[in-house]
Amino acid sequence: MHILIVGATVLPMTASSADSTKYYTGTVGISDGRIVFVGPTEAVREDESHFRQTHPDDLIILDGKDQLLMPGLINLHNHVSMTLLRGYADDMALMPWLTEKIWPFEAKMTAEEIYWGARLGIAEMLLGGTTTFVDMYWHADEVIRAARESGIRGVICPTFVGSNYDTFEQEALRILQDPTLKNDPRIRVRLAPHAPYTCPPDTLRKAMSLCERFGVGIHTHVSETQDEQRMIRETYGKTPAEHLRDVGLFEYPTLAAHCVYLSESDLEIFSRYNVAIAHNPHSNMKLASGIAPVTRMRAHGLAVGFGTDGPSSNNDLDMWEEMRTGSLLQKVSTGDPCALSAYETLQMATVDGARAIGMEGELGIIAPGARADLLLIDTRRAHLTPCHDWIANLAYSAKASDVDTVIVEGRILVQDGSLCGTDLTKLREEASRCVTSIESRL
Amino acid sequence: MHILIVGATVLPMTASSADSTKYYTGTVGISDGRIVFVGPTEAVREDESHFRQTHPDDLIILDGKDQLLMPGLINLHNHVSMTLLRGYADDMALMPWLTEKIWPFEAKMTAEEIYWGARLGIAEMLLGGTTTFVDMYWHADEVIRAARESGIRGVICPTFVGSNYDTFEQEALRILQDPTLKNDPRIRVRLAPHAPYTCPPDTLRKAMSLCERFGVGIHTHVSETQDEQRMIRETYGKTPAEHLRDVGLFEYPTLAAHCVYLSESDLEIFSRYNVAIAHNPHSNMKLASGIAPVTRMRAHGLAVGFGTDGPSSNNDLDMWEEMRTGSLLQKVSTGDPCALSAYETLQMATVDGARAIGMEGELGIIAPGARADLLLIDTRRAHLTPCHDWIANLAYSAKASDVDTVIVEGRILVQDGSLCGTDLTKLREEASRCVTSIESRL
Repeated sequence: MHILIVGATVLPMTASSADSTKYYTGTVGISDGRIVFVGPTEAVREDESHFRQTHPDDLIILDGKDQLLMPGLINLHNHVSMTLLRGYADDMALMPWLTEKIWPFEAKMTAEEIYWGARLGIAEMLLGGTTTFVDMYWHADEVIRAARESGIRGVICPTFVGSNYDTFEQEALRILQDPTLKNDPRIRVRLAPHAPYTCPPDTLRKAMSLCERFGVGIHTHVSETQDEQRMIRETYGKTPAEHLRDVGLFEYPTLAAHCVYLSESDLEIFSRYNVAIAHNPHSNMKLASGIAPVTRMRAHGLAVGFGTDGPSSNNDLDMWEEMRTGSLLQKVSTGDPCALSAYETLQMATVDGARAIGMEGELGIIAPGARADLLLIDTRRAHLTPCHDWIANLAYSAKASDVDTVIVEGRILVQDGSLCGTDLTKLREEASRCVTSIESRL
Repeated sequence: MHILIVGATVLPMTASSADSTKYYTGTVGISDGRIVFVGPTEAVREDESHFRQTHPDDLIILDGKDQLLMPGLINLHNHVSMTLLRGYADDMALMPWLTEKIWPFEAKMTAEEIYWGARLGIAEMLLGGTTTFVDMYWHADEVIRAARESGIRGVICPTFVGSNYDTFEQEALRILQDPTLKNDPRIRVRLAPHAPYTCPPDTLRKAMSLCERFGVGIHTHVSETQDEQRMIRETYGKTPAEHLRDVGLFEYPTLAAHCVYLSESDLEIFSRYNVAIAHNPHSNMKLASGIAPVTRMRAHGLAVGFGTDGPSSNNDLDMWEEMRTGSLLQKVSTGDPCALSAYETLQMATVDGARAIGMEGELGIIAPGARADLLLIDTRRAHLTPCHDWIANLAYSAKASDVDTVIVEGRILVQDGSLCGTDLTKLREEASRCVTSIESRL
């Protein structure tokens, strides 16, 4: 598939903050899933002309008038199938929430139900401009199936706690040895020990041997709550970061979710091992876990992006709200209105998210050779008017519902704000049917 | 105009939290701006039949299938014309933000520009389900004109600081003596001393004599920042709440914006004088002002609702995001995930907002005799599926873009998510033209 986008305001994003005002009216050419050329309209006139000649019959042309073109958003932490638990239990203390509501419900979920929960959540993410998501759940093969059928990009992570390691290993091996996945550029796999307090060191070491054998990385929860800090201190006499380092986990590329409580020396450990972080402001606030020190993480040079966490602790999968709340929360918690600026916030959701999953240069930017995961934002909204600065309007005013077009790996998955080739009504009906069925078995 | 809404899920809202799960499929009849009857479909079958017979030719029937009917949202604090400054200055410390950017820009704004800024912001509010807004700005007659032409309900407050009291008084008298306003059920007026640190006591007393003469209330900023606390302490040896009480301001119905810093004894003063509060979480976070003690305010029985503040410190006018962030911020700041529940959050934006402006029983509920300020929410969204509980879905997942229909004083102002009889493109163009003109004069 070949796509030419003309006349859009292009926000290419960069890893540096110095270029923060660089957007321009330009043209982008996309072929076979990658960006072929991009630049200001006049500067790339020859590239455009050549591109049109090369693809005279099979070129899709998107008019970028009144649209802003930016990289797709990267959601670094999710349990997407938990859409089925959206609004099932709220405003509860953590332990009764888990033991009386979430775990009993989850215990009844079948593989098929996990698939439909994932389909619904992926639809929500695509409609809101998320083009890549990192997911941690059991029956990960069903989440992979849902992602492949939906066209979204995913880093999908089979997960375990100490008591179900063997089941996990079977599932992980099935996925890691699946020959069809090797040729799918959109799906990557990591292994997901649930957390240091639920996975004994011997199970972590077994998972690490799989990482070694298959060349994959780790996704795990780290330092989400004060209780976790206390438990790990009591059991191992260390912080969670020290404990995981000493077990050797950080020898593998690691994406750590939450990290609400990190000391300066923990941050140095993360820096030394290039541990990346998924910051989940809505979830941390809703569960009253705390406020993660994002500005300090960034000062240490860490790759920090945003995640929504699962829909039972959020309760949606809206990266625009994570960005907005994430920025404002840093300002109020540090007492500094300059903290986590609009551009830094957009970086976290794009370039920094790409770095956090080892895909810097490939995702989160609009540049020749990068993968074509792109959004067109419809700027003709009351809340996006006037435009003093697109960076500010995107970070502080734009909404999931402003996303007009979504492209993943060069394929158009959303157009005019609607899913292409996916029947949302059916997904909603299937998800509701699953919920009724699970509740009848509770 | 007579409207019948059939088959919607009706969330009538109540002042008590005990009834929090009460929603049902029902019917509502609206005549001449007020709700005539409401109830479960079968229970009000006779009312419906009678209503249809009474209005055989001029009845608008709205199909509520897949829609949720709830009271319109009440935005308790705004400077709506500041849409023109949306994204103009962000990520700055308070004083340079004000002195180098906001004030110089505002100094150039003409009455006509204030009108167009208000028209654009009101359009944004209506599209997102806000049916009443409280506004504080100069050239308040232009904001009133914009509100009347738009059809929204407003409590519009001419404002002053010490140095411009005389100009304010002329404007206030013109508005308070306007005979056409007396017959407009949608417009109310209050007077707005800017803040205790900008308005010397003699100007407060002069404004109070106008309140006495015309029977109107007060809207003012109180205790927004630690700096304000310090300044009032240095000047008067008191807290802002003590100072305003001692001047006598609280003898008039008062709506205080922000109130980030209130001691227990300040809260007791507010309680004794029934001072209501506009909580503005996004603005307080963005300017790093602090986190208002909303749960403590509610424990004192105060009427507390949400406001967006002006679009230059937010940067949008989205009450759904204020609700969501407001709830989550109380949870994380108190360490209690049960704080400010989903239902309490919805109450703040509806019934409690009505109480805060002295319109309890008239607004913020769906009940016979109440004014017909209503929303239909389109529930056919990925992010509103499944539905375990509408209260949770509304508070934690619903978005401004889910608002399908907006009714104010029995008039349909938004249908199918679009403004009725208002050309949004023209409003956007006029606002952009104003910005270009202002910038050319800077």
